[in-house]
Amino acid sequence: MFKIKKQKNRSDQRIGLIKTRKGVLKTPVFMPIATKGAVKNLTPEELESLGAKLILGNTYHLWLRPGSEVIKKAGGLHKFMNWPGPILTDSGGYQVFSLGEKMLKRRGGNFVKITDEGVQFRDPIDGKKYFLTPEKSIEIQLDLGSDIIMVLDECPAFPCTRQKAEAAVARTTRWARRCKDFFEKESQPHPNPSLNKGRERVGSKRPLLFGIVQGGIYKDLRQRSTRELLEIGFDGYAIGGVAVGEPREYLKKVLNYVLPLLPENKPRYLMGLGRPEEIVSAVKAGIDMFDCVIPTREARHGRLYKFKVQSSKFKITDKNFYETLQIDKTKFAKDFKPIDGNCGCYACQNYSRAYLNHLFRTNEPLALRLATIHNLKFYLELMEGLRR
Amino acid sequence: MFKIKKQKNRSDQRIGLIKTRKGVLKTPVFMPIATKGAVKNLTPEELESLGAKLILGNTYHLWLRPGSEVIKKAGGLHKFMNWPGPILTDSGGYQVFSLGEKMLKRRGGNFVKITDEGVQFRDPIDGKKYFLTPEKSIEIQLDLGSDIIMVLDECPAFPCTRQKAEAAVARTTRWARRCKDFFEKESQPHPNPSLNKGRERVGSKRPLLFGIVQGGIYKDLRQRSTRELLEIGFDGYAIGGVAVGEPREYLKKVLNYVLPLLPENKPRYLMGLGRPEEIVSAVKAGIDMFDCVIPTREARHGRLYKFKVQSSKFKITDKNFYETLQIDKTKFAKDFKPIDGNCGCYACQNYSRAYLNHLFRTNEPLALRLATIHNLKFYLELMEGLRR
Repeated sequence: MFKIKKQKNRSDQRIGLIKTRKGVLKTPVFMPIATKGAVKNLTPEELESLGAKLILGNTYHLWLRPGSEVIKKAGGLHKFMNWPGPILTDSGGYQVFSLGEKMLKRRGGNFVKITDEGVQFRDPIDGKKYFLTPEKSIEIQLDLGSDIIMVLDECPAFPCTRQKAEAAVARTTRWARRCKDFFEKESQPHPNPSLNKGRERVGSKRPLLFGIVQGGIYKDLRQRSTRELLEIGFDGYAIGGVAVGEPREYLKKVLNYVLPLLPENKPRYLMGLGRPEEIVSAVKAGIDMFDCVIPTREARHGRLYKFKVQSSKFKITDKNFYETLQIDKTKFAKDFKPIDGNCGCYACQNYSRAYLNHLFRTNEPLALRLATIHNLKFYLELMEGLRR
Repeated sequence: MFKIKKQKNRSDQRIGLIKTRKGVLKTPVFMPIATKGAVKNLTPEELESLGAKLILGNTYHLWLRPGSEVIKKAGGLHKFMNWPGPILTDSGGYQVFSLGEKMLKRRGGNFVKITDEGVQFRDPIDGKKYFLTPEKSIEIQLDLGSDIIMVLDECPAFPCTRQKAEAAVARTTRWARRCKDFFEKESQPHPNPSLNKGRERVGSKRPLLFGIVQGGIYKDLRQRSTRELLEIGFDGYAIGGVAVGEPREYLKKVLNYVLPLLPENKPRYLMGLGRPEEIVSAVKAGIDMFDCVIPTREARHGRLYKFKVQSSKFKITDKNFYETLQIDKTKFAKDFKPIDGNCGCYACQNYSRAYLNHLFRTNEPLALRLATIHNLKFYLELMEGLRR
């Protein structure tokens, strides 16, 4: 399921392969975000041509709209959104918890209620009540047809007291166990083989299930969480509860707490990160998988990434290997060079900075598309460079 | 320059070819609108694959932003926006006049001042003063690199008194003469042939220049305007001052006033129209060229066109040959059929109504793109049907 092709000398970096039922992924891998079943502004064909192999769908958003039963009826998320490659879905937990924090600040009162059974919340749009349990999260992800399923975890925001972090770790472990049990039951082949026909989720066609390490910034809690998940046993291990508002210097520490405990033969996924330099340093530390809204969101704000060196010559040891262009600035209005003369993306091959500048300043929707194409190409090239 | 391939029996419909310096256009032809140098949400490659051959750029918008000097420096609009085919540009007049009407209603006072010399107006965004003359309009369009250039006309909104319409016709004729003179001078080859090298606008490489008939709803004024333009002589003739707020029944009348006077061997362009049934009836009356925001604007509002009969079997005599789907309505939430099972567009070939419904309801930008692709395909198929 995961095979290390190469371990770099004098570094913990690995280059590997993850086998999913929808194809093999080279790692380190970056997944563009298709929150609501579409990467903003792009078609699946464009994603493929940029070199994207794995995308992330958000369980919370898809459960509420259009509803997992609609996607199930459509034949799964792949068919619904026309993406043939592997899809990873999160558990929905992170969105529910951050929704809770947001609503608490905005309206006061507990919009989200967490018990050991699960999390109750209301749809902020229509007020409808939902109850997300570990079992429900797995069920939704199976209905979506996800190829890499994440367990439901409790993910407290930073700052978080030791006591709260400890309770979150304990609940995360209990929920991980319930997720695993439910997943095993659901992916068990039926004793009558003819009833398994067409059931994609069973046997060798089953999706992968990943556990999520919590524990905030506390060494012993991170280690405890890791050990407890290892005991349950998963196809891969994610590090959650990072990029939740903590100062950046904690990231390295958390990786140092967790990574030495993880087995070499399982993929490691750092959730929700990050800036290019964070990805480089996490890869060096031994992380295999990333998802992040940064390239697509920054693109929509006209901030375009550019390698300072040609990406094919990119070395993992280079400091300051990239810069960003705020493309709607006046200085680009008459700049007829491409965003990056060394970039092979559709935007750089066909348009000038001046054209992008014009599209952004006049709110032409094509601006967002061209910028998204370019920034994703940058991230995917970065991963390609890191795999070399 | 214009060749009639076929005149339909018992109808004034023509099927023809317009030769431009960027290629030959089959008529009747519909041009998608690239107001600010981009058809909203689409790339030129997508337009081409939909079968678009000619697009329209708006002189007013491009003059103000990014400025015609920027586009000239970029090597012209074709290069700036990456569209290799022919481009028609309007004169900028229509936008200035409708801006005047709008600002008059909103703020009172004359935001736009018309004299015989030209039109003075302010950029509603930054307040900067501009002065558009017939010569300036042609100069801008030459700088943009337009392949079909429109003269500056005076285009009063409906309702318009006879007196006002008459004055507008007289001024339109005077301006048309000045446009022609300036255009002729600018497209005159230099006596020293080596100085003409690289000058795309001269000799056989010169763009086409079209006159615009005004006269409101008044028969004699429409006829006078037509005759006066014919006397000056243009490469084609447009009917302006329609779709400016007048009741729909006037369209047929205006076509009846003007078309019998126009020569058979020049293309005829009905400006700013229209709904599918209006296009069909105008083609029957002998119109060759159309531009309209309807397919792209309706797409952005989730109104999708669909033939009731398969478009390859479409007959010009069919009544009610199409319908519209308001795709964000609940009834489409679980409708897994394509928008139109007979449509070959990218949206219909790859996505369901349910997916479009979901994208629209959750404000995913891909919605606008898929809808735009589909509606333009509908219009371009309609033209294809009308050419058969």
